[in-house]
Amino acid sequence: MEALLEKIIKDCAPYKTLGRPASYIPELANGDINDLGIYVTCSDGQSFMAGDALKPFTIQSIVKPILLLLCLMDNGPDLVRDKIGVEATGKPFDAINVTEGSLSSSHLNPMVNMGAILMCTMIKGRDSGERFSRLLELTRLLADNPSVELDQKVYLSEKQTGSKNRALAYLLKTYGMIDGDVEEILDCYFKACSIKVTCKDLANIAFTFANRGRHPLSDKRLFPAEYAHFVNAVLVTCGMYDGSGDFAVKVGVPAKSGVGGGIMAVSPTKMGIGIFSPGLDSKGNSIAGIKVLEQLSKEMYLSIF
Amino acid sequence: MEALLEKIIKDCAPYKTLGRPASYIPELANGDINDLGIYVTCSDGQSFMAGDALKPFTIQSIVKPILLLLCLMDNGPDLVRDKIGVEATGKPFDAINVTEGSLSSSHLNPMVNMGAILMCTMIKGRDSGERFSRLLELTRLLADNPSVELDQKVYLSEKQTGSKNRALAYLLKTYGMIDGDVEEILDCYFKACSIKVTCKDLANIAFTFANRGRHPLSDKRLFPAEYAHFVNAVLVTCGMYDGSGDFAVKVGVPAKSGVGGGIMAVSPTKMGIGIFSPGLDSKGNSIAGIKVLEQLSKEMYLSIF
Amino acid sequence: MEALLEKIIKDCAPYKTLGRPASYIPELANGDINDLGIYVTCSDGQSFMAGDALKPFTIQSIVKPILLLLCLMDNGPDLVRDKIGVEATGKPFDAINVTEGSLSSSHLNPMVNMGAILMCTMIKGRDSGERFSRLLELTRLLADNPSVELDQKVYLSEKQTGSKNRALAYLLKTYGMIDGDVEEILDCYFKACSIKVTCKDLANIAFTFANRGRHPLSDKRLFPAEYAHFVNAVLVTCGMYDGSGDFAVKVGVPAKSGVGGGIMAVSPTKMGIGIFSPGLDSKGNSIAGIKVLEQLSKEMYLSIF
Amino acid sequence: MEALLEKIIKDCAPYKTLGRPASYIPELANGDINDLGIYVTCSDGQSFMAGDALKPFTIQSIVKPILLLLCLMDNGPDLVRDKIGVEATGKPFDAINVTEGSLSSSHLNPMVNMGAILMCTMIKGRDSGERFSRLLELTRLLADNPSVELDQKVYLSEKQTGSKNRALAYLLKTYGMIDGDVEEILDCYFKACSIKVTCKDLANIAFTFANRGRHPLSDKRLFPAEYAHFVNAVLVTCGMYDGSGDFAVKVGVPAKSGVGGGIMAVSPTKMGIGIFSPGLDSKGNSIAGIKVLEQLSKEMYLSIF
Repeated sequence: MEALLEKIIKDCAPYKTLGRPASYIPELANGDINDLGIYVTCSDGQSFMAGDALKPFTIQSIVKPILLLLCLMDNGPDLVRDKIGVEATGKPFDAINVTEGSLSSSHLNPMVNMGAILMCTMIKGRDSGERFSRLLELTRLLADNPSVELDQKVYLSEKQTGSKNRALAYLLKTYGMIDGDVEEILDCYFKACSIKVTCKDLANIAFTFANRGRHPLSDKRLFPAEYAHFVNAVLVTCGMYDGSGDFAVKVGVPAKSGVGGGIMAVSPTKMGIGIFSPGLDSKGNSIAGIKVLEQLSKEMYLSIF
Repeated sequence: MEALLEKIIKDCAPYKTLGRPASYIPELANGDINDLGIYVTCSDGQSFMAGDALKPFTIQSIVKPILLLLCLMDNGPDLVRDKIGVEATGKPFDAINVTEGSLSSSHLNPMVNMGAILMCTMIKGRDSGERFSRLLELTRLLADNPSVELDQKVYLSEKQTGSKNRALAYLLKTYGMIDGDVEEILDCYFKACSIKVTCKDLANIAFTFANRGRHPLSDKRLFPAEYAHFVNAVLVTCGMYDGSGDFAVKVGVPAKSGVGGGIMAVSPTKMGIGIFSPGLDSKGNSIAGIKVLEQLSKEMYLSIF
Repeated sequence: MEALLEKIIKDCAPYKTLGRPASYIPELANGDINDLGIYVTCSDGQSFMAGDALKPFTIQSIVKPILLLLCLMDNGPDLVRDKIGVEATGKPFDAINVTEGSLSSSHLNPMVNMGAILMCTMIKGRDSGERFSRLLELTRLLADNPSVELDQKVYLSEKQTGSKNRALAYLLKTYGMIDGDVEEILDCYFKACSIKVTCKDLANIAFTFANRGRHPLSDKRLFPAEYAHFVNAVLVTCGMYDGSGDFAVKVGVPAKSGVGGGIMAVSPTKMGIGIFSPGLDSKGNSIAGIKVLEQLSKEMYLSIF
Repeated sequence: MEALLEKIIKDCAPYKTLGRPASYIPELANGDINDLGIYVTCSDGQSFMAGDALKPFTIQSIVKPILLLLCLMDNGPDLVRDKIGVEATGKPFDAINVTEGSLSSSHLNPMVNMGAILMCTMIKGRDSGERFSRLLELTRLLADNPSVELDQKVYLSEKQTGSKNRALAYLLKTYGMIDGDVEEILDCYFKACSIKVTCKDLANIAFTFANRGRHPLSDKRLFPAEYAHFVNAVLVTCGMYDGSGDFAVKVGVPAKSGVGGGIMAVSPTKMGIGIFSPGLDSKGNSIAGIKVLEQLSKEMYLSIF
C-alpha cells in the first residue's frame, strides 16, 4: 500500500503545476504549488502516507461536513433537511441563487456557503464563540488530534476580505433565515474555515464517516451511523462543487474539497483519505488531488457505484 | 385646473384603501392610508393642489432620479452609462440579479437599489457625509425649498433594518464595483431615502426635469438639458419598478414612485407633478397615486407617446 | 431638411461597415453593407429622403408594432395587456425566459418573438392564411403603398431554418398559451417577418403612429389615438432589444429595429422616419442607423423626454 | 425475504393514495392508484416479489439509464461526458435551462429530457427506427425478457401531446447540438418512453447495473463494469428528479423513477429492485414506491453511503 501511494504521488506530480492556489487572500495565494501529499487510514487500524502528508493547511470548505455533522447531532436530521435542504443546486459554491425576490431552503444546501453560514447559527452554544469551540472540539475528536488549532493569520484575512460571505449572510437575514448580529455569526464561519489540518487529520476524520460513526482506533461510537449516511450522501451529490457529477463518475466516493488545496474522501467501511495539493482548477478543486483519487479508486476498486 | 384636481382626488379616493403601506419599518407602516394629495407646478408659473398636498413623507426611491442627476453633474453621462448601465433589467427594485457568479453594469440601472448604492459612491465629496450634504442641497435647490430635511426616525430605522441593502452593497464590493467601508456608503444611501418632502416639493423637482434643467420660477438653468433627457428617459423605462411598461402604456409620462407613497411625474415642457398616497400595490407603487395620474393624463392629454 | 439628411448620411457613412448583416439565413447575409438610406414623412405633408431610401429589404421585427396594432384593433388593449404583458423583460429578442417550469404573460412582451408568435394567434381570421392577409393589408394601408409584398425567398428560408421560433412556439403550446397547429401559426409569423418594405414605407407607417392614428396625407383616422400611445410606449421600453435604455437616453423616440437592417422611428406629432443599413451590432440593431437617428434627434430636438 | 416484502407492501399501502397518476395523457391518468408491487432479483440467483409485481406499465424516464448505457456502449464515456455532461442541474426533469441565449452540455445531463433526446441521436443506427430497435433489444437483453414490447397507445399519445419535448428538441437544434429531422428524432424518444415493463423487468435490468455489467442468471458480461459505475453514479446525483438529494440521504441507492409510477433501484453487488405504484408526488416520483424503498433500505442496510 505504501508503495502504491508513493507511485500514485509520483505519477500525479505533473498535475501539481496545472492549477493555481486560491488568490483571494495572500495567505492562500502563497500556497506552495509543489506540495502534494496523501494519508490513508484503514479499517484494520493501519495507516499509510506519501508526500507532504503532515504539512498543515487550512481546512476551508472541508469543514462543511463536520459542521453538518454537528448540526445533525444538535438538531436531528429532520430539522436540518427542513431548514437547509439537501438538493444539489447546480451552482458554484458561493453563488447567490436569488433571482425571484425570495429565498428558501430549496436554494441552499449544506455544502454551499450560504448553507454553511446558516448551520453556524444552528449548532448549540450561548454565543458565536462557544459555537466555534464546540466545532473545534468535534474536529479534534474526529481527527483524534487534540492539537488541531485555528490559523490566526488566515482567519483574520478571511474576516477582513469576506465581502461575498457578508452579502450571503445579509441575504439570509433579509429573508428571516438567520437572526442576530451578522458579524458575530460570520466570525464563527471565518474561524471554522481557518482551522489548520494535515492530510492525516483529514484521513482520520474521513474514517469516522467511512466507519459509520465509530472512532478509527478505539472503535467507540462518536455519532449515529445514520448521520454518517447523511453526510456521505450529501458529499456525493454536492461535495466537489459543480464538478460533483464528474467526480462521482470518475472516482465514485463521497468527498469534499476546500480552496486550501485539501480533499477529504470517504471509502465507506474501508478507509478514510486525506489529500493536499494547493493547485486548483477553475471550479476550486485541487487538480492533482483529484488525479490521485482517480488513480487510487481505480487501483483499489473504491467506487461505491 | 383646481377643480379638475379636486374632482380627480375625489374620484380616486376609493382606491386609497386597496393598498397597504410599506411594512418593513414601523415608521412607514404607520402611514395613514387615508392620505391622498396632489400638487402641480405649471410652465406658466402657476401651481395647483388638492388633498394632502402639503403633508410630509419620506422620499424613498424618488431620490434616485435626483441622485442620478447629481451623478451626471459630477461625472458626465458617459461614465454613468458605463458604470451603472441604463437598461431595464426586468427585475423588482431590490432584486439581486446575480446567478452567474459575476456582476457587471448590465445587471444594474440607476433605478434599482444596487445602482443607487453605487451612485452614492460616484457623487463628489470627501466622505459619505459630504456626499449626502451635496445631495440634500441639490434636492432643496430643485424643490425651491431650503427647509427640506432628513426624517431622523426613518433614517435610523432604515439603517437598523437594511439587511437587503447591506447584502447588495457587499455584492458590489465583492465584484470590485465599490470601494471603502460599506456601512459608511450605506449611511449616505439610508439618509438619501429618508429625506422628508411634500407633494409640492416633488412637483417643483419634477418641473425642473420637465423644464429641461431650468428653475420653475426664475427660469435660471440649474443643469444641462441633456441631463433632463437622460433622467426622463431612464424614468420611463424603469421608474415604476416592474410596472413601468404598464404605466407607460396607461399614463405615458416619466415618473418615479417610492415606498413612502410618493410619486413624482414629469410632463415634459408642461408641468411637474407630485402625488402622495401611502397604500401600495404588490410592486411597491401607490395604487391611488397611479389612478390619479391615469385620470390626469387622460383629461389633459399628457402622454408623451 | 433635404440637405440635413444628406449631411447626416454622409457623416454616418463610416459606421456602415462596423456592423455585420444578420447571418442566420443566406438571404440576409447577402445584404449589401454599403447601403444606408433615410426617409422622413413630416406632419406638414412634406417628405424628404437621402441615400438608399427606396431600396427594398425585409421588415423582420419591425412588423411587431404593426402586429401589435392589429392585435389591439381586434382585441382591445385590456386583453392584449392581459395575455401578452407589456413589461420589459431584460432579455434579448429571442431569449427563452423559462427557468421555473412555467410560463406566464409576465415572461412575454409584444416585442419579443414569443409575444409576437402569440399575437399571430390573436389577430382575427379563419386560418393562418387569412390572418396574414389582414396583416399585409394593414401594412399596405399604413404605408400608403398597395404594392407592399412578401419576399418569397426570405420567407421560405426563415421557414426552413426557424428552429428557435419553433422551440418558442412549442413552449407557448406547452403552457396552454396557444392552441392549434404550431407550423400553421409559425407560417403566419415567418410571412410577417418577410414582408418587403423600403425606408419610405417605414416612414409612412411610423407617421401614422406619430400622427396618433391618422393617415399621413388624407388625415383620415385609421385607428384610435389610444392604440398609437400604446404602441409608442411599448416601443420606447422594448423596441430596440436590450439596447432600448441606451437608445432612450441617446435618441429619445419610440423606435423598432429589425435584423434586416431597418429601423422605424416615431417622432410624435412631428414625423415618421424610416432608415435602412444592414450592418448590425451584437444586439441586432443597425449601427449606422442608430448613429443617423442620434444625429437627427440632436439636430432637430426630437427627444420626447 | 418474501415475508419482509409482503410486510413492507402492507405497511406502505396507505401512501398509495396520497399521490396522483401523471395526467398529461389519458393513458397515464387512468393508472390504478391502488397498484403497488415490488420485485427483487438477488445476487444468489434468487428472486422475490410482492403485490402487483407482474403488472405492466410504461417505463417512461426509467429508460434513460438504459439509453445512457447504450450511448456509452456506442460512444465511450469520454464523448458522452463531453456532449451531454453529468452535473446535476438543480432543475426539474423537463426544465428548460436556457436564460443566457446559449446552450451547452453544462445545461444538460443524461437524466433530463433534453439530455435524453440528445442521446437518441448518439446511439448507432441508420435511422431513428433502427436506433429504437437497438434500444428495445438491449432492454430485452437486460430484462432477460424477449417479449418486452412497445405500448402502442401510450406511444401515440405521447407523440401527439409532446409539445414540451418538441420545444426542447428544437432548442437543441437551434444550438447545433442535434442535426436532422426533429420529428424523426422525437419518434425514437417517444417510443423509448413507451416501452412496457413490469417490476420483474426493472429488477432484472437493475441487477445488471448492480452486478456491474454481468447477466443476472448466466453471469455473462453484457457491458463493461465501468459503464455500470457511470450509470449508477449519474443515478445517485440526478435519478430522482429534484428529489435526488433527499432520496440519497433517506434511501442511499442509485435509482431512477418514471412518471408511469415505476422505480428502478440498484443495490450494488447485492440486488436489483423494481417497484410500481402510479401515485406521484409533485416532483414526479412514486410516493408509495419511495416509502417502500426507504423501509427496505433501512431493514436491509442497503445505503451505499
